[in-house]
Amino acid sequence: MMRRIELKWTVGYSHSEDVPPEKRVPASVPGAVQLDWARAEGWGDYTYADNWKDYLWMEDVYWSYETVLEKPDLGQDERLFFVCRGVDYRFKVKLNGLVIYDQEGMFTPFEIDLTEKAAGGERLEVLVFPAPKSVVEPVNQVQANQCCKPAVSYGWDWHPRLIPLGIWDETYLEVRPSSHIKDYEALYAMDGDLSGADLKAVVCLSKETDGKVVWKLYDPNGAQAAVREAPASACRIELECRVEKPELWWPNGHGEPVLYRSVAELFDRKGKLLDKKESRIGFRTVRLVMYPGGWREPEGYPKTRSNPPITMEVNGRQIFCKGSNWVNPEIFPGIITEDTYRPLLKLAREAHMNLLRVWGGGIVNKDSFFDLCDEMGIMVWQEFPLACNNYLGTPAYLKVLDQESRSIIKRLRSRASLVLWCGGNELFNGWSRMTDQSPALRLLNRNCFDLDPTRPFLMTSPLMGMAHGNYLFRYHNGEEVFQVMPKASFTAYTEFGSPGPSPADYIRKFIPEDQLFPPKPGTAWESHHAFRAWAGAKNSWLLPEVIEYYFGPSNSLEELVERGQILQCEGYKCIFEEARRQKPKCAMALNWCYNEPWPTAANNSLVSWPHSPKPAYYAVKASCRPVLASARIPKFVWKSQEIFNPELWLLNDSYERVPVGCIEAWLELDGKEIFLLAWDSPGVEPNSNLAGPFIRFRLPEAESGLMVLKLRNLQDPAMDSEYVLLYRR
Amino acid sequence: MMRRIELKWTVGYSHSEDVPPEKRVPASVPGAVQLDWARAEGWGDYTYADNWKDYLWMEDVYWSYETVLEKPDLGQDERLFFVCRGVDYRFKVKLNGLVIYDQEGMFTPFEIDLTEKAAGGERLEVLVFPAPKSVVEPVNQVQANQCCKPAVSYGWDWHPRLIPLGIWDETYLEVRPSSHIKDYEALYAMDGDLSGADLKAVVCLSKETDGKVVWKLYDPNGAQAAVREAPASACRIELECRVEKPELWWPNGHGEPVLYRSVAELFDRKGKLLDKKESRIGFRTVRLVMYPGGWREPEGYPKTRSNPPITMEVNGRQIFCKGSNWVNPEIFPGIITEDTYRPLLKLAREAHMNLLRVWGGGIVNKDSFFDLCDEMGIMVWQEFPLACNNYLGTPAYLKVLDQESRSIIKRLRSRASLVLWCGGNELFNGWSRMTDQSPALRLLNRNCFDLDPTRPFLMTSPLMGMAHGNYLFRYHNGEEVFQVMPKASFTAYTEFGSPGPSPADYIRKFIPEDQLFPPKPGTAWESHHAFRAWAGAKNSWLLPEVIEYYFGPSNSLEELVERGQILQCEGYKCIFEEARRQKPKCAMALNWCYNEPWPTAANNSLVSWPHSPKPAYYAVKASCRPVLASARIPKFVWKSQEIFNPELWLLNDSYERVPVGCIEAWLELDGKEIFLLAWDSPGVEPNSNLAGPFIRFRLPEAESGLMVLKLRNLQDPAMDSEYVLLYRR
Repeated sequence: MMRRIELKWTVGYSHSEDVPPEKRVPASVPGAVQLDWARAEGWGDYTYADNWKDYLWMEDVYWSYETVLEKPDLGQDERLFFVCRGVDYRFKVKLNGLVIYDQEGMFTPFEIDLTEKAAGGERLEVLVFPAPKSVVEPVNQVQANQCCKPAVSYGWDWHPRLIPLGIWDETYLEVRPSSHIKDYEALYAMDGDLSGADLKAVVCLSKETDGKVVWKLYDPNGAQAAVREAPASACRIELECRVEKPELWWPNGHGEPVLYRSVAELFDRKGKLLDKKESRIGFRTVRLVMYPGGWREPEGYPKTRSNPPITMEVNGRQIFCKGSNWVNPEIFPGIITEDTYRPLLKLAREAHMNLLRVWGGGIVNKDSFFDLCDEMGIMVWQEFPLACNNYLGTPAYLKVLDQESRSIIKRLRSRASLVLWCGGNELFNGWSRMTDQSPALRLLNRNCFDLDPTRPFLMTSPLMGMAHGNYLFRYHNGEEVFQVMPKASFTAYTEFGSPGPSPADYIRKFIPEDQLFPPKPGTAWESHHAFRAWAGAKNSWLLPEVIEYYFGPSNSLEELVERGQILQCEGYKCIFEEARRQKPKCAMALNWCYNEPWPTAANNSLVSWPHSPKPAYYAVKASCRPVLASARIPKFVWKSQEIFNPELWLLNDSYERVPVGCIEAWLELDGKEIFLLAWDSPGVEPNSNLAGPFIRFRLPEAESGLMVLKLRNLQDPAMDSEYVLLYRR
Repeated sequence: MMRRIELKWTVGYSHSEDVPPEKRVPASVPGAVQLDWARAEGWGDYTYADNWKDYLWMEDVYWSYETVLEKPDLGQDERLFFVCRGVDYRFKVKLNGLVIYDQEGMFTPFEIDLTEKAAGGERLEVLVFPAPKSVVEPVNQVQANQCCKPAVSYGWDWHPRLIPLGIWDETYLEVRPSSHIKDYEALYAMDGDLSGADLKAVVCLSKETDGKVVWKLYDPNGAQAAVREAPASACRIELECRVEKPELWWPNGHGEPVLYRSVAELFDRKGKLLDKKESRIGFRTVRLVMYPGGWREPEGYPKTRSNPPITMEVNGRQIFCKGSNWVNPEIFPGIITEDTYRPLLKLAREAHMNLLRVWGGGIVNKDSFFDLCDEMGIMVWQEFPLACNNYLGTPAYLKVLDQESRSIIKRLRSRASLVLWCGGNELFNGWSRMTDQSPALRLLNRNCFDLDPTRPFLMTSPLMGMAHGNYLFRYHNGEEVFQVMPKASFTAYTEFGSPGPSPADYIRKFIPEDQLFPPKPGTAWESHHAFRAWAGAKNSWLLPEVIEYYFGPSNSLEELVERGQILQCEGYKCIFEEARRQKPKCAMALNWCYNEPWPTAANNSLVSWPHSPKPAYYAVKASCRPVLASARIPKFVWKSQEIFNPELWLLNDSYERVPVGCIEAWLELDGKEIFLLAWDSPGVEPNSNLAGPFIRFRLPEAESGLMVLKLRNLQDPAMDSEYVLLYRR
């Protein structure tokens, strides 16, 4: 069997490929050179104040990891491998100064057979090149437009410019039998009626042997569902079986994410186990389908095409996708572990989210992310690492993109949770200027079609009929989300934001006391994205003028934060629930964004780094309940004597009928509760919404302040909803 | 050198693959079994009256071509090949009853080495299967949705249901040296600034020899521009050269379609010529670019994607594409020759057309079509054989589509005239229901990207921003093209029609005398598409009620035809000129359709079968002049005392400045010419339009009848235009 040997590394930098570092410090692997250096030098935490600026120079030097190999303890017929799951980004591997491997691209793992090369005492070096930059200016994500490195690292409106470099995924020595499993994969084809699945396991051996390969499938209860074996007399062995009536993998809210276990074992002639690989299988179908009536649009002539389909159908069931946009949970992906992912994904599941769009500005996540999504029934929309740039199809770029995309597709295509490939973010908009003709996107279509033909592929988001934005509660023209969203009519809202400040006690941790209040541009507030984060809104993402517009001047950090968070919560509730009301034409509501890679002072995120829910998280959680009473509210500020006229709805994304029930509407104003209306709802059909009555209520004189619309289902309080609004005398 | 031996064929049919025909008749090869049988039986011409109905049964039987091989006269080191450039559609080749070849697909040529098989006296048989049908019902193009056979043959609104079968392209025996050129191709990559081109010739030999391969490039004057040679010691030989400042191939209206000649020769050791292949090279770049301002659309948020680019840029010059939709010029493509194509393409060139969309319902044309387009500077938009169906991605269908599309791409990718690949016709509309996810279209995108990566590829037409239709002068809601088109705002009008009757003397040739007037449904008029041709307009394409609406009852065939043709002419002028006015957002105006495969009584076509221009041809020719005075006219019918208010324009698609000039507008009414206005135009910039004044003229009392708006450029009468309208007292 395999034995893993961990390595101890040091790291240092120099200004030239050919010059060794003057100094080396201990390195954590996986990790990032920046963190190693800062730790050794005793620098301040990069998340505090403006400390990140001290790290900037590190993107432009060569970093050399080094370890000295010990004399390997190899048995007869054993071999020694250097195994590396990822180096960020361009690197060479040297042994005693001789280059033995050379690669550009962080998503393609590699291994090197050292058996004949390592007798003990050799210096093994991983030389990491400076961060790739296609241009000197501008100093932003444009520099990433000829590489497959996440563009976000070059600076974004919620991410400082910090470009990770280094060994970012598991890396070790491994002693293996000379005949071992090099590659193993189990895929299936489902019957159209879901009545059965044909499975195929492919086991690739390092070399044939006179033993055998055994493949076992275990059902969700651990019982053996199938076993197949074959002589290990070829390097590539295919085994097939069929599973009748498999238990299905269901997304969150629609059933259990049932997983089977698949095990491939290699035995020698005497029946000794040489190697073993495992994977899990979730049986499900997935496709994108047209919304009802979609093929009748557009009407009349001259006629353009109908919208492309974006309604997710899993196991024959059309599923409204509620979720969010996932970004890197750390600036430095090398320190991400399963413990980074688990609390974030658990919160997403608890918030009734069933789909996360893994945005193309970030990394393709580690395996543990997909393990957890598979287990939690969270569907993954996976983008390739292209975002907001025009990635010109130069031969050098296409070569790396081809290599990286093939590695990504092969690694992930067996995942039940993965439901959609996408070329990248906002590539068909004016700030990117790629098109359906761009070679990079045609290449991605080709590779997905060649390697994973049944999984849907989008060239980018948004496509025709889909929409991104806006990222404001109140628009520049004075309109609010309350007015804008009901006028919109899109097939999927795959990004939209409602910014809000982080909690005050959280902000105190990284904004120095003397800069704390009032927040100002040019301070640590700006580093942490409260000001000038986004060209679309100068004071983003804090937007103090919007908070003041609604609430007047704030007297403390706590007051400012509380008010900003009310806007974020109500903005998100408005958008999520309006998107749901537009079902079935609308099929998705994914807010921008779910998480964040470091502490922001203000952001559109729902969960503060590393995994603390903001009030907006709970607001979104409420709006994403499968069944709820909902109100379409025309505006945020109401005055005395105005007619308060929200429209009542019952929203149902579940596939169960919601029974008859009485919904009461109450208004909390000036400390009192006023009865507005009782709606004897006839119930709602599965996966349907029901429009109810309009309230028409003349607002009385009262003290200015918050007022709260409360919807109560007398039979089932789990459907109750509340909306916080402003009342002005 | 090669020697071609023609074969004499007979053909007969049976009802089973295993039963030989009871009777054989002489066959023309290439041709169609239907024509052979009808000729032998002395049937009436299928183009006359309802004769085509007699041919229907032929689609459902097996057709066997047979020839007896003569003793081949082979020299030493010579081989005998059976060469076939196309059999329509599913077939087997048998020698003395034994199957030696088997194929589905008419666009993949094949050859069989008979040297060891044919001693003389063998029966060589090509057994053609019945026309493929995916379903029994409906009896229309839906039956073609699992094959790569042109859907049009299954019946269309201007094509009777006649499904050709048989050997449809050149087929013969060939004696070849054992070492000969199996495959030869010369491709190039142009510098971005057009300053030079790197050429590569690939010569594939049947077997290596101790001679050499010589590749010569001749410039447009016949002078040798380059010569390269290599020993013929490998089966695949690549030769490279560079041409500095090549003369460019230009589309019609923008310069000469300059062609170089490229010749590959294979010599034996003694310098004897063994084989020779030629091709022509037109140096040019082509890409699709965004229109000015296109990246700023759509405005606001939520924001969907920008339109895909559809502006054709050739040699760095944005070229407004004026042209038409090309359909099969014959029902039976086996009888198409260069003489079929030449007069049609000459007319297109003379009409200032620079692009033909070869519609996916028809065939991919023979080489002579592309020879002529290359020579005439007519750009070709080539679709794959998919149209108006949902071609489901079954393994069997994808296999044939993969084979056929690869054959098509490899055959045509060296053509200068070919500027665009397209998956097929109207696949993203409700009547087809394919999507960006359809495996067939992803496969085509992949194959084009793999084999021809620099040529633009569209999945279908229309795409987002582009439009098809309508195909009426007067819409069902009473609107006319005059009102509809100025309201439209699309990036390309790639289909639009204005139907009109064929000339009266032409109609008399195929409508029996007793059915001639008045035209009625249920007669030969209906077979020839005057009635019930299209569900969108019951009396299409004659539409007598529209003619009567404008002109009152017609008293003769001649009167009816003349009136209908006025509507067709003015409809087309309106649309072509409006599309040009919408430049630069609009980049293409291609009417539906250019030609027709048999005589129609009424159709949207400009040229009657086989190549007689209709009046509409001349109207379109006038509207497609590079430079013209044009009028945007609000409606067709005008009454006395109304304000006649056309808007004057100067349209310029050329890259020359149009000089200052005076344009006078006159109205011919009641036999008199009335002066309306003189516009001292300041001239127009290259590739620009200029909006001029509105006429505002109160129409006087006059006799009801036609009135004609005449625009006259006093300096250059070549810009003059006329518009025929209706005046009612």
